[in-house]
Amino acid sequence: MPDRVPPLSLSLIEQARAFLAGRVLRTPLEGSPALEEILGVPVWLKLESAQLTGSFKIRGALFRLSLLSEDEKLAGIATCSAGNHGKAVAYAARSLGLVPTIFVPSSVDESKYRAMLDLGAEVVRSEFPGYDETEQWALRQAARAGKVWISAFDDEAIMAGNGGTLGLEILEDAPQAREFVLPVGGGGMAAGLAYAVKDRFPGSRIVGCNHELSPALALSLERGHAVTRLPAAETSAGGIEGGIGAKTFAVLRSRIDRVALVSEEEIFKGVRWMLEKHQYLIEPSAAAAVAACLTGKVGTFEGPAVVLISGRNVSLPTLGRILASRDISDPASLPAKGHFV
Amino acid sequence: MPDRVPPLSLSLIEQARAFLAGRVLRTPLEGSPALEEILGVPVWLKLESAQLTGSFKIRGALFRLSLLSEDEKLAGIATCSAGNHGKAVAYAARSLGLVPTIFVPSSVDESKYRAMLDLGAEVVRSEFPGYDETEQWALRQAARAGKVWISAFDDEAIMAGNGGTLGLEILEDAPQAREFVLPVGGGGMAAGLAYAVKDRFPGSRIVGCNHELSPALALSLERGHAVTRLPAAETSAGGIEGGIGAKTFAVLRSRIDRVALVSEEEIFKGVRWMLEKHQYLIEPSAAAAVAACLTGKVGTFEGPAVVLISGRNVSLPTLGRILASRDISDPASLPAKGHFV
Repeated sequence: MPDRVPPLSLSLIEQARAFLAGRVLRTPLEGSPALEEILGVPVWLKLESAQLTGSFKIRGALFRLSLLSEDEKLAGIATCSAGNHGKAVAYAARSLGLVPTIFVPSSVDESKYRAMLDLGAEVVRSEFPGYDETEQWALRQAARAGKVWISAFDDEAIMAGNGGTLGLEILEDAPQAREFVLPVGGGGMAAGLAYAVKDRFPGSRIVGCNHELSPALALSLERGHAVTRLPAAETSAGGIEGGIGAKTFAVLRSRIDRVALVSEEEIFKGVRWMLEKHQYLIEPSAAAAVAACLTGKVGTFEGPAVVLISGRNVSLPTLGRILASRDISDPASLPAKGHFV
Repeated sequence: MPDRVPPLSLSLIEQARAFLAGRVLRTPLEGSPALEEILGVPVWLKLESAQLTGSFKIRGALFRLSLLSEDEKLAGIATCSAGNHGKAVAYAARSLGLVPTIFVPSSVDESKYRAMLDLGAEVVRSEFPGYDETEQWALRQAARAGKVWISAFDDEAIMAGNGGTLGLEILEDAPQAREFVLPVGGGGMAAGLAYAVKDRFPGSRIVGCNHELSPALALSLERGHAVTRLPAAETSAGGIEGGIGAKTFAVLRSRIDRVALVSEEEIFKGVRWMLEKHQYLIEPSAAAAVAACLTGKVGTFEGPAVVLISGRNVSLPTLGRILASRDISDPASLPAKGHFV
């Protein structure tokens, strides 16, 4: 089947935006006085954690599936996902009356796994804990079954839907923003957002946040080519585990200004900090961007900043571990100040 | 000072709605397939947990403070709150350049307490764990200091702002809804919402949810008069602890169709259920309404239902306790179903 998706462009992003209008939520952009104090510039959180299905992935999934031909729908669709993309594809597919086959790593977050099943998808758990090995295996299974492959990131419609529409929306709500902090996994959202933002403001800065145990973006920039496969890393941040896409890196390489590498412990602190300061539950992958701000790894900001809060899907056992690992140096565990009577 | 707030009426509610437009978020109404399965009717969650300051209380606080005269602003304002109303008053007062004095029970949730301080309020912790004793003491302190008292619930502007505007908003987004499930504490939100909803649809049903250890609404209906004071109950659901208002009960007595009494354990399960099924963190008071649905204590529904999710403010230690108390009979702790390879 010929690829009917044109290359990433502002017009594709605008097409995605028009399609998604009324189909996804316009999520809030909320000021963060606490981050402003740390970073010294105005800071907003883009709360895609409040999005349908609990993450930005629904944007790309709905738009990508809207481009399926009738023949493709008959053939059936398959995808691979650490969770959020799969949940989004399950949601989007159901609205078209399709039952997608979703391959997931053995380490998949239980909350995401259950959600895909609840949405009626066929979910196949691989024997591999990492994303990359799962995807390689899943691609073979899907090809054998003659199913249409829906990439979680390395696809122009996914980039336009996930990141491009987010970029346009943020620029409408915070036209003064010039610094953007994003978690980066396969790079679909980051590529689309960076494309839209740099098209409008070439002087703006994009900080991509990688897990230090799975630094695909950092390695790719260093080596000058997309590092599409990495050994499985043990992390609760499944959304930023594994290699980057070849297509997404082609967009990102000239548009990323800095990479921040954060640790699992810093990510856990980021989740707790968001609960303490904003009373929002966010997932570990989303907390990578918060962690990069709290640790100063984002570098010095020269203008107003937006931190992308990419999702909220986290299982109870993982959340329990995050709360339990709270350490004594954590400001949140110090006694409160105030008047006592 | 004369009371310049007219009695509760649809016109006061509409005045509140017009004032709040653009000042508070229009929170999402989200379908709950999981509750639909349990209750057998269409069910939506009204997510006021996504509201500014983390609860519906900002509606009433902003509207109430907008009615202050210049003399009253000069005199200063004081209030008593288990947390959410105080946080909302702190937020609203700051926008007017006022520093409110907020009296809180000694048992106040730390997350709410810190948030009030961060918003610049003067926060005074009482020696009493319960709301009612704290309020009696606070009223004397405020009177002595000549401050204007802002009731957390027993005030027409608070009823109109908190509950009336919520009712109108829900009826716009779900005009077919005829069953409404609400947590009830002092009764300000419940009175306003019940007033607006029954005005439009006299045949609709309102289920008020009380904590079994602090059943002010149930006792008031039984005794035929407002039970405005109750001994302190030990609960993480501070928002529904304590007596009901005299003014709010006057509105509620003819408009409440059923009271559901839920236990602390059922409330904890409600918090976990929301995390599992919707990936939303909600506070214990809000989970009382969810618990009433999960236990069947809401009774039989004959039409589409709306469950009010009133807030999301909960401290990390309390959340840790809620997750840790998870029991083996909890469906969320059973192994997942699906295909394994």
